[in-house]
Amino acid sequence: MSHLKPSLHTSLSPALLHLYNVSNTIVVIIDVLRATSTIATALYNGAKCVIPVDSVAKCIEIGKQIEGITAGERDGQIAEGLEYGNSPFEYPPAFIGGKTLVLTTTNGTKLLHMALERGAGQIITGSFPNLSSVCEYLLSGKQNVILGCAAWKNRVNIEDLLFAGAVIERVKEHFDSNCDSSAIASTLYGDAQNDLYGFMEEKKASHYLRLSGYGLEKDIRYCLTPDIANVLPFYDNGILTVR
Amino acid sequence: MSHLKPSLHTSLSPALLHLYNVSNTIVVIIDVLRATSTIATALYNGAKCVIPVDSVAKCIEIGKQIEGITAGERDGQIAEGLEYGNSPFEYPPAFIGGKTLVLTTTNGTKLLHMALERGAGQIITGSFPNLSSVCEYLLSGKQNVILGCAAWKNRVNIEDLLFAGAVIERVKEHFDSNCDSSAIASTLYGDAQNDLYGFMEEKKASHYLRLSGYGLEKDIRYCLTPDIANVLPFYDNGILTVR
Repeated sequence: MSHLKPSLHTSLSPALLHLYNVSNTIVVIIDVLRATSTIATALYNGAKCVIPVDSVAKCIEIGKQIEGITAGERDGQIAEGLEYGNSPFEYPPAFIGGKTLVLTTTNGTKLLHMALERGAGQIITGSFPNLSSVCEYLLSGKQNVILGCAAWKNRVNIEDLLFAGAVIERVKEHFDSNCDSSAIASTLYGDAQNDLYGFMEEKKASHYLRLSGYGLEKDIRYCLTPDIANVLPFYDNGILTVR
Repeated sequence: MSHLKPSLHTSLSPALLHLYNVSNTIVVIIDVLRATSTIATALYNGAKCVIPVDSVAKCIEIGKQIEGITAGERDGQIAEGLEYGNSPFEYPPAFIGGKTLVLTTTNGTKLLHMALERGAGQIITGSFPNLSSVCEYLLSGKQNVILGCAAWKNRVNIEDLLFAGAVIERVKEHFDSNCDSSAIASTLYGDAQNDLYGFMEEKKASHYLRLSGYGLEKDIRYCLTPDIANVLPFYDNGILTVR
């Protein structure tokens, strides 16, 4: 059996994750706009760790307990009671270095918790800013992989698929993949790769419309930039750190 | 408000249908390989109606009650106790004309029942063989639309997206669509439209592999052929008929 390649599947929404067996599997949590991009950035810039939580109340509570920086948005505004937002630009080294970021996001956090509850072998986070780190790890891991898209309130989104497709494009020779969702992601990425931002704009991606409506085009461009914060966040015991 | 266009969304899997409001909406049930292709074909060839049921036992029971033709497959074989299979080629006019087909399929039937239970305004079925009928109806209906992919045991598949994309391509000017799943389907169809079969083959679509493994390439080609059985099946009171 040693010549068998590990498997690779893509789950397009948290509402589909239960269809896949996550045990003994590396699950990559993908929330390109903006949770997993901001997580990579904070850690790349020297944050001690990032604690993802699913509510503003919990963010405030944990923030107090550990003297962490509390951050999170609801409908494009910093949530009441929190100090900072979801933009990667809020976390430069001079500010975030050595600190703990307590971050509340809806979609990414939900999927992180879900993967944990379902008994995933290992959980890492991915987005374009840490694309190469994710791919290198998957290639060295020789384990089954699930690319888990965080989507938007369970609705499938374009940008998470694009990142899944980018990963697949780089690792596919080393995996067996009988998975239409992966083929769809890969095809989409093939169409988009020369101009990811232009593709999001042209396709009127819902998240492109939402964030550009808030004047956050710069965030979108950053989150689609490969390897600009190339670290590998691992999720263990409720905490994201770079090993 | 009269200038507002109706909305169009695509649900990529039955496990995602609950995210969309189906009331006062036309839901198109899509199970290209092969349920909704075979349903269109049987009705086009003169079947009185098609009764979709979710189990072999119910298929046998209803078939006896109404002296219908019982049909259904499990793992590529005619299911034990049933008379015919899921192939559209089994239902030529000379055989199916004037008869009732009691058909058990897993994915398509499940989604038909789900749409009904959730209170869909109208439910029709679509596949390439009745593409134009579906599009004309959606254009004349001026109602909100959900394109509901039957998928495979809730896993997203390529061919149902391709059909959704083909519909979107033809009707999009008349709908508002802030829906990434629709944009994804549309993009995929754009890549595939010149050779749908070749695309399925190239992308190693799971259903292509499954059916071609049973020697059913002819069925796949048929199910991807536009307007070869161009009728519009409506689902009312548990029965599919052409109005």
